[in-house]
Amino acid sequence: MNTAIKVIGFDADDTLWINEPFFRDSENEFFKLLGEFESAENINKVLYKTEMQNLALYGYGTKSFMLSMIETGLLITNHKITNQQISRIIEIGKNQIEKPVELLDNIENVLIELSKNYKLILATKGDLLDQERKLEKSGLSKYFHHIEVMSDKQPENYHNLIHHLDIMPEEFLMIGNSLKSDILPVIEMGGRGIHVPFHTTWVHEEV
Amino acid sequence: MNTAIKVIGFDADDTLWINEPFFRDSENEFFKLLGEFESAENINKVLYKTEMQNLALYGYGTKSFMLSMIETGLLITNHKITNQQISRIIEIGKNQIEKPVELLDNIENVLIELSKNYKLILATKGDLLDQERKLEKSGLSKYFHHIEVMSDKQPENYHNLIHHLDIMPEEFLMIGNSLKSDILPVIEMGGRGIHVPFHTTWVHEEV
Repeated sequence: MNTAIKVIGFDADDTLWINEPFFRDSENEFFKLLGEFESAENINKVLYKTEMQNLALYGYGTKSFMLSMIETGLLITNHKITNQQISRIIEIGKNQIEKPVELLDNIENVLIELSKNYKLILATKGDLLDQERKLEKSGLSKYFHHIEVMSDKQPENYHNLIHHLDIMPEEFLMIGNSLKSDILPVIEMGGRGIHVPFHTTWVHEEV
Repeated sequence: MNTAIKVIGFDADDTLWINEPFFRDSENEFFKLLGEFESAENINKVLYKTEMQNLALYGYGTKSFMLSMIETGLLITNHKITNQQISRIIEIGKNQIEKPVELLDNIENVLIELSKNYKLILATKGDLLDQERKLEKSGLSKYFHHIEVMSDKQPENYHNLIHHLDIMPEEFLMIGNSLKSDILPVIEMGGRGIHVPFHTTWVHEEV
């Protein structure tokens, strides 16, 4: 392809900064909290199932995760979870939202270079408020033209994004850690992708 | 002002379709659910206080509302709320997310006319997934270029929006039911606003 790239989309979580390990940490606290009722392995299975059932309704993000943890807690304890344990789940979620932003290695240098020649946008399916907060804390906002929140990262959502940006699919390059969300659908739509693997991936994102 | 308007932003909830009454209905169910512990008036006070405390962390939308209802339930019952009641709160929230879309009177005719001459966008601080679902169900998506989700509707957020749309403030007109969110901050930024009070017919009041 010889068309010049006009816009580069960056995934945010686990591409610019650490995110998935925070979910794993919260999950582990949650498993420990309910350890008297079930093994971590079984709680994890029910949690994942609950999250998948709620995905169409809730979408992605920490609030969805919190609601699914509460629902899982009610389910796996056969309604014997205590109010204190439910309060603790809410606390675990709130702590996760407030975690400091930890940038991945060398990100800022990459952004400095790319922002000289391209319009950079943040293309994320996280919660807008969460992502704005993280971008602010990260000190990276000056490199991005704006944030694009996507309800999902299917080819259709990227089509909408391209339309919205008023560019051709081949003028768009996406950079991210998830083959399933950041790369394959963009290629399918006629754009380009660069895969930057991260060490921890949510099962839901694996292909 | 003589500059031509290029983009018209529409607020979604209670401007295009009914929303606030659904929150009131859910709240009333919630007050009834915990009626054995407290009066509706007192529960309402604690709920509102909890929502305000959580706003910076959670942002707007039904999931935030659900989490604040659960937290309020734990608080006002002095941790005596039952697991069944917590399950019921989650159910109330899920039912609200799935409510059918009820368009306000005459909306489609207005959009047909305006979309002939202007680029229309949906500018909302609701949850993206929620708003996409409502727009889909409403049958109005063909009139809108895209959805802009805003984490808040302060002058600063409208500045970002204008920048993102690559237009001048005076080329932007916002239409909505909230003076505080849809009109005053847009005027402050140098744009224009039309206030459409909810529960009345369309009254065009250019500022």
